[in-house]
Amino acid sequence: MSTSPRIIEVREKILKQNDVLARTLRASFQDTGVFVASMVSSPGSGKTAFLERLLSRLSDEYRVAALVGDLATENDAARLQRATPQVRQITTGTICHLDAQMVQKALEGWNLRDLDYLFIENVGNLVCPSSYDLGESLRMVLLSVTEGEDKPLKYPTIFNTADVAVITKLDLAAAAEFDLVTARRNIQSVCPGMTIFEVSAKTGQGMNDVAEFLHARRAELNVVAAK
Amino acid sequence: MSTSPRIIEVREKILKQNDVLARTLRASFQDTGVFVASMVSSPGSGKTAFLERLLSRLSDEYRVAALVGDLATENDAARLQRATPQVRQITTGTICHLDAQMVQKALEGWNLRDLDYLFIENVGNLVCPSSYDLGESLRMVLLSVTEGEDKPLKYPTIFNTADVAVITKLDLAAAAEFDLVTARRNIQSVCPGMTIFEVSAKTGQGMNDVAEFLHARRAELNVVAAK
Repeated sequence: MSTSPRIIEVREKILKQNDVLARTLRASFQDTGVFVASMVSSPGSGKTAFLERLLSRLSDEYRVAALVGDLATENDAARLQRATPQVRQITTGTICHLDAQMVQKALEGWNLRDLDYLFIENVGNLVCPSSYDLGESLRMVLLSVTEGEDKPLKYPTIFNTADVAVITKLDLAAAAEFDLVTARRNIQSVCPGMTIFEVSAKTGQGMNDVAEFLHARRAELNVVAAK
Repeated sequence: MSTSPRIIEVREKILKQNDVLARTLRASFQDTGVFVASMVSSPGSGKTAFLERLLSRLSDEYRVAALVGDLATENDAARLQRATPQVRQITTGTICHLDAQMVQKALEGWNLRDLDYLFIENVGNLVCPSSYDLGESLRMVLLSVTEGEDKPLKYPTIFNTADVAVITKLDLAAAAEFDLVTARRNIQSVCPGMTIFEVSAKTGQGMNDVAEFLHARRAELNVVAAK
């Protein structure tokens, strides 16, 4: 019953509306020179800890902001505000992903020209967010070492819609008996050539590489020149 | 756009169809004396390891079977077949949950009277599965110690639709600095009075309690008497 023609038709209409709005958002991000990166992962993969570490690192030199999605609670926004004051929570109720309209609404009142980087943390979910373009220039899929090496094979779509993969909680790799070689191979078999970062938000390991990659991507997009 | 009247109407129709079929399934499970328990959790919370341990423990004395849901791959079924030959994989493609129709179809050809226990492992997702009744008599929500204590607060609906909570990967609790007291409090604040099990599929800790609970629940439902 989940694949009846009427459902597909309605779903396609929603996705089309979302794509139109996402394109508008992307254009306004580029016009105003803000580099937008989003994060998707399972619940509990460490998106917020990763983002907190990233915001702390970038906020000395750059103007950074974040939107964080959750079904309920404002806990993540409160956590991230330790790193930067410009954080807004999007609570989605029972909806399992962010969409472009939620992002647009959450940005109301912010002047995008005042920002260098905007991060969007999606709802913890390895399925639903894959179909929704949020206007971001970079999508990162996070996979923690405690989830097992097989997740890219089981959730290929979300890995395919991401630009880079980030293996998180590296400090727990030995305790979780995580096999990095297999994990890398599984990511590459689903997304050949994908860039993979390996980090621990707890120890800071690998975070430099991520920050440098973001700077390079931002420079490539010439957003700096647009200012 | 995700909450337009037409979408809600279509969604309600699907859910109603699912509920009707789930009631039929539940009646046939009870008539044939098979106790059906399902498992929901994030991807990587250890559903398959938990189920493998449970099947091994029960299969000496009871006739057990399992259905396992994933978007892609048949890996989990292959793993579980080490514990019992009666395992079938349901691959859902891009659908983020099992539904009653998928369960009905996967059961084709099996004689339910030949079974004492049937386990259904849902797709790893803390949102979508909550709306779909599968005809099970018991729904277990799993939460691994590596996901953080806050997940019940962030995903209250799935905890509310479950009958019991199982905290998994207890062997990693110290390494992950998991606070059991806070986790228990968060579960109780969302679902007051909920039974909570604390297990490690790796060491076997707590698995006896789960098995005994299942036996007691099965006896309560008088499914044994129906044989």
